[in-house]
Amino acid sequence: MTVLARPLPDTASRTARLVADRRPGHSLPAPFYNDHEIFDLDMSAVFARSWIFVGTEAEVAEPGDYRTVEVGSYSVIVVRDDDEQVRAWHNVCRHRGARILTDQQGSVGNIVCGYHKWTYGVDGRLVHAGQQPPSFDPGCFGLKPVHVRTVAGLVYICLATEPPADFDHIAERVTPYLLPHQLHRTKVAAQVDLVEQGNWKLVMENNRECYHCDGHPELSCSLFPTYGYEAADMPARLRPAFDRYLAAEDLLRRDCEERGLPYARIEELSGRETGFRIQREPLDGAGESLSLDGSAVSRPLLGELDTPRLGRLSMHHQPNAWFHCMADHAVTFSVLPLAPDRTLLRTTWLVHEDAVEGEDYDVDALTDVWRQTNLQDGVFVARAQLGTTSPAYEPGPYAPSEYQVDDFCTWYVERLGERVAP
Amino acid sequence: MTVLARPLPDTASRTARLVADRRPGHSLPAPFYNDHEIFDLDMSAVFARSWIFVGTEAEVAEPGDYRTVEVGSYSVIVVRDDDEQVRAWHNVCRHRGARILTDQQGSVGNIVCGYHKWTYGVDGRLVHAGQQPPSFDPGCFGLKPVHVRTVAGLVYICLATEPPADFDHIAERVTPYLLPHQLHRTKVAAQVDLVEQGNWKLVMENNRECYHCDGHPELSCSLFPTYGYEAADMPARLRPAFDRYLAAEDLLRRDCEERGLPYARIEELSGRETGFRIQREPLDGAGESLSLDGSAVSRPLLGELDTPRLGRLSMHHQPNAWFHCMADHAVTFSVLPLAPDRTLLRTTWLVHEDAVEGEDYDVDALTDVWRQTNLQDGVFVARAQLGTTSPAYEPGPYAPSEYQVDDFCTWYVERLGERVAP
Amino acid sequence: MTVLARPLPDTASRTARLVADRRPGHSLPAPFYNDHEIFDLDMSAVFARSWIFVGTEAEVAEPGDYRTVEVGSYSVIVVRDDDEQVRAWHNVCRHRGARILTDQQGSVGNIVCGYHKWTYGVDGRLVHAGQQPPSFDPGCFGLKPVHVRTVAGLVYICLATEPPADFDHIAERVTPYLLPHQLHRTKVAAQVDLVEQGNWKLVMENNRECYHCDGHPELSCSLFPTYGYEAADMPARLRPAFDRYLAAEDLLRRDCEERGLPYARIEELSGRETGFRIQREPLDGAGESLSLDGSAVSRPLLGELDTPRLGRLSMHHQPNAWFHCMADHAVTFSVLPLAPDRTLLRTTWLVHEDAVEGEDYDVDALTDVWRQTNLQDGVFVARAQLGTTSPAYEPGPYAPSEYQVDDFCTWYVERLGERVAP
Repeated sequence: MTVLARPLPDTASRTARLVADRRPGHSLPAPFYNDHEIFDLDMSAVFARSWIFVGTEAEVAEPGDYRTVEVGSYSVIVVRDDDEQVRAWHNVCRHRGARILTDQQGSVGNIVCGYHKWTYGVDGRLVHAGQQPPSFDPGCFGLKPVHVRTVAGLVYICLATEPPADFDHIAERVTPYLLPHQLHRTKVAAQVDLVEQGNWKLVMENNRECYHCDGHPELSCSLFPTYGYEAADMPARLRPAFDRYLAAEDLLRRDCEERGLPYARIEELSGRETGFRIQREPLDGAGESLSLDGSAVSRPLLGELDTPRLGRLSMHHQPNAWFHCMADHAVTFSVLPLAPDRTLLRTTWLVHEDAVEGEDYDVDALTDVWRQTNLQDGVFVARAQLGTTSPAYEPGPYAPSEYQVDDFCTWYVERLGERVAP
Repeated sequence: MTVLARPLPDTASRTARLVADRRPGHSLPAPFYNDHEIFDLDMSAVFARSWIFVGTEAEVAEPGDYRTVEVGSYSVIVVRDDDEQVRAWHNVCRHRGARILTDQQGSVGNIVCGYHKWTYGVDGRLVHAGQQPPSFDPGCFGLKPVHVRTVAGLVYICLATEPPADFDHIAERVTPYLLPHQLHRTKVAAQVDLVEQGNWKLVMENNRECYHCDGHPELSCSLFPTYGYEAADMPARLRPAFDRYLAAEDLLRRDCEERGLPYARIEELSGRETGFRIQREPLDGAGESLSLDGSAVSRPLLGELDTPRLGRLSMHHQPNAWFHCMADHAVTFSVLPLAPDRTLLRTTWLVHEDAVEGEDYDVDALTDVWRQTNLQDGVFVARAQLGTTSPAYEPGPYAPSEYQVDDFCTWYVERLGERVAP
Repeated sequence: MTVLARPLPDTASRTARLVADRRPGHSLPAPFYNDHEIFDLDMSAVFARSWIFVGTEAEVAEPGDYRTVEVGSYSVIVVRDDDEQVRAWHNVCRHRGARILTDQQGSVGNIVCGYHKWTYGVDGRLVHAGQQPPSFDPGCFGLKPVHVRTVAGLVYICLATEPPADFDHIAERVTPYLLPHQLHRTKVAAQVDLVEQGNWKLVMENNRECYHCDGHPELSCSLFPTYGYEAADMPARLRPAFDRYLAAEDLLRRDCEERGLPYARIEELSGRETGFRIQREPLDGAGESLSLDGSAVSRPLLGELDTPRLGRLSMHHQPNAWFHCMADHAVTFSVLPLAPDRTLLRTTWLVHEDAVEGEDYDVDALTDVWRQTNLQDGVFVARAQLGTTSPAYEPGPYAPSEYQVDDFCTWYVERLGERVAP
């Protein structure tokens, strides 16, 4: 439900104070996690201005295939048009404003509003509206467009009139990493929506460090728990894992160089409109996949890849996504805020488009690690959310291995700061 | 839950701006559908000032029979007193304010608060309050009255100190239409409460046009889908129905004239405090009733009516009611807002007071059309509500056959405009 | 969920007006019962400043035993430390603010945050935080303390920096009444949490009068329904009960004097920071306990008491507690606001620490009176709450036997008045 726009000055000046109060190296002041006005600002200043990851081309494979996505109070139709282009439209009828498509996904010839049958093409044009006077010009009542673009099979939308200018440059840089996995030639093997009981930033923060990875037994089978640590600060208990990591990294680097696969870390989490990070990193165990023993859980391998031992190509994208692409499958994560203290996490498992369920992959085995890990993270996020509601909460210090969390928070206050600058 | 009254100036000036922004011929700006402050204003400026239809005399047939009705945060007792008059009282104990009657209906000798047993007559007088000091004057603690009046068996209340002055005039005009159906000599055969997931105005708007009647297969069996269309603009697909309509109207007019029944349309939906509309119109199919084949579904006929083919006497009453009186039964609809996005629709089916269930009428057959139609409308209203929450919503143009929706919106902004005029 | 602190002036000036409007001898203006801003003020100006009863020493009997308590948006750990002292800590990790203990009760060696394993002693010190830089000083990151004190086995916390100064004096005065029951040597036989659908003040008010005791058939078996009445105003229907009361009181006084037990009423409900009342009063029926026939329902008797006929030692403590100590068992009541219209009532039945369930007491028989009475009161409170939401509500006059309710309201507006004084 929307709220009558409040006079900006109050919220803006309070937010500006909070932004100024943010202490680098520390978690955010409580209102950033649980205040309704800040949440509205997050939606308008961050989510309605940034490129938002909403799904994959595999989810709208054929012309007429569509997905509806809710970003805050927006509802957007992502649809493949008859020219095979991915398009995005506001899911709002131009007649009396009814929500047009109410299913999460489906396939249509035209986009027909169920109320008075106004009918739009998948290209957005109004092609039929019954009993209008001669003065009525259908050309004025096409669906309102939403910016959309695909990057190596990943679909992003932007609700702003002018999307962030830096995205082309980022797309250019990450595409060589992603392309070998040919995500546009995958299919969705499973998708799980989980509503976490916490602010969207806590969901993102939680994903940026492995200081809590003791709480992830399944994930720790194949993901090195040394993530985020500098060699010099490696805790003694992680030493054996770190040694394995160094050996695996060495092997991976050689494999990548041999095949011309980029692997070097690019990490620009703050200081720019679209914070991101990408790197190919080795996996523990069998080293092939994020699975309970580290071995591949689907076949054929993605794209033209010729070895399963390519670790994980991990990408993080602010404000709302992260990805793990292995040789055998990929997993995408899309974070969609629902309320100050509730966030939808949509996880999608992609396998080769020719893979056959039951023969080439088993859904339980494929999804086990992240289903468990997401549930565990949901508990962590809920604890963090609960804690910030106490007036006794005060921002505490991030450990060195949480530097990416700190970077994320810095990026976030930069975004808000732009919006509420005096 | 009430909220501490906010300083009026802000809300008023924002509302005044929204009222001024309303574009005739177009749906309302979004805040009118989903903003909490506007909703509070709707309750105080519209529902607490207008005559509200709350039920029928048949529901409080005997002295002591009562109904409790919630209008926004008000709770009202409608009760028949010992002189057989219908009275209305605030359902608030004068001691410590407890809700007195908590059932939706019943029959009482006195009205007794269940907390400390303060006891009021059905005439509102405090007749007992235990252990008071000599200075206590029971005469000062009678139940607070609510204006109430009946119009040909329909019960209206008004929460304002001074009810709208134009209602006498309206009552005079509609009574000759209604009287022949003798609603005060009916009984309730069925009553269904449906909570629709939309603003009360969307519920009222939805009822003012048949542009969406394709979505009502059961209703379309007997209600001409040409409702709202001018002859000149009749869509081709409705031509056959319109021809049937013209023939049926001709027949109905003669039948009415023969019996001295008024049938002409009175339509004053805007430009006055109490917008209303009344007209006797023919029915399709057997032409007798709103049923799956258009034939009567209850007997005996209402009042002294001597033929079942009297079409539907349809009345609309702003802000909150509409009615269909057929020769064999009547249906009343009362719209009671619950929240910006939730509205109670109470539908009541009335049959002759001597009709016997199972012999003279079957409840399923009697109620089928409107149970289905209400559910369908509930889906339409929910879509419309959802749509208006998107920031991409902008008011769209009403089709000519939706002119009554436009009139309703005009009436509504007139009401708010009066309240927030500079 | 907390809300960004609003500028105080508006709320304060409106509250000041409401405080000034309060009419002595009458129930409070509606916003005190159902307004969100006033509720927030109640939490900050009353609950975060007063001593709050949160449980008994019996609930944290051994070192490491803890309870978590929610007071508004605060979460507090009450724990017995290794020196057998009861301590209280904010349940907020000093790292990133996570809620540390999520169970309502349990026993721990250390207090370990489940997110990143920061580990605190039961004395609040941070004893472990993994992988910190050399500059990190654990001494700066102990759990934040909450004031806590025990009074004859009852545990109180205070969230303010400076707790009310008058509590020492009160503790001194009530301790001689309480000590003979040796509550620190009891155990919890049963505990029931009931969420009442009303404001916390309505829950407290309801407990301060017996004008409604007709509605408590089980309680009336042993509690004299003459509570709150002056002899001169005793209603005729209560005369027989009053005669029994006088006789029982005479007997009780002699028994108390013989044993050196204080019994005289101290009643200082308003005009001081911590309103309270204590008195030993006789019981009806067998006169021994609050039970269906007034006879004792547990053994051995509490402390060194040598007769079961010691009536009830009843204490009331503002803002949030009341107590009944009989010779055989004690019952404590803790009122914890959840929302303007929802309140948690926690009722705890205490028996001698050596009593054996099934042999020395039967839980159903022990708890029957107050389980039923609480449910009945919950209905009364819900009715009162509902009533105050009607704009037709106006504060009504308390009867003379409700003078303690009036005193409570006076105390309450004194507290708010201090906070919003011009």
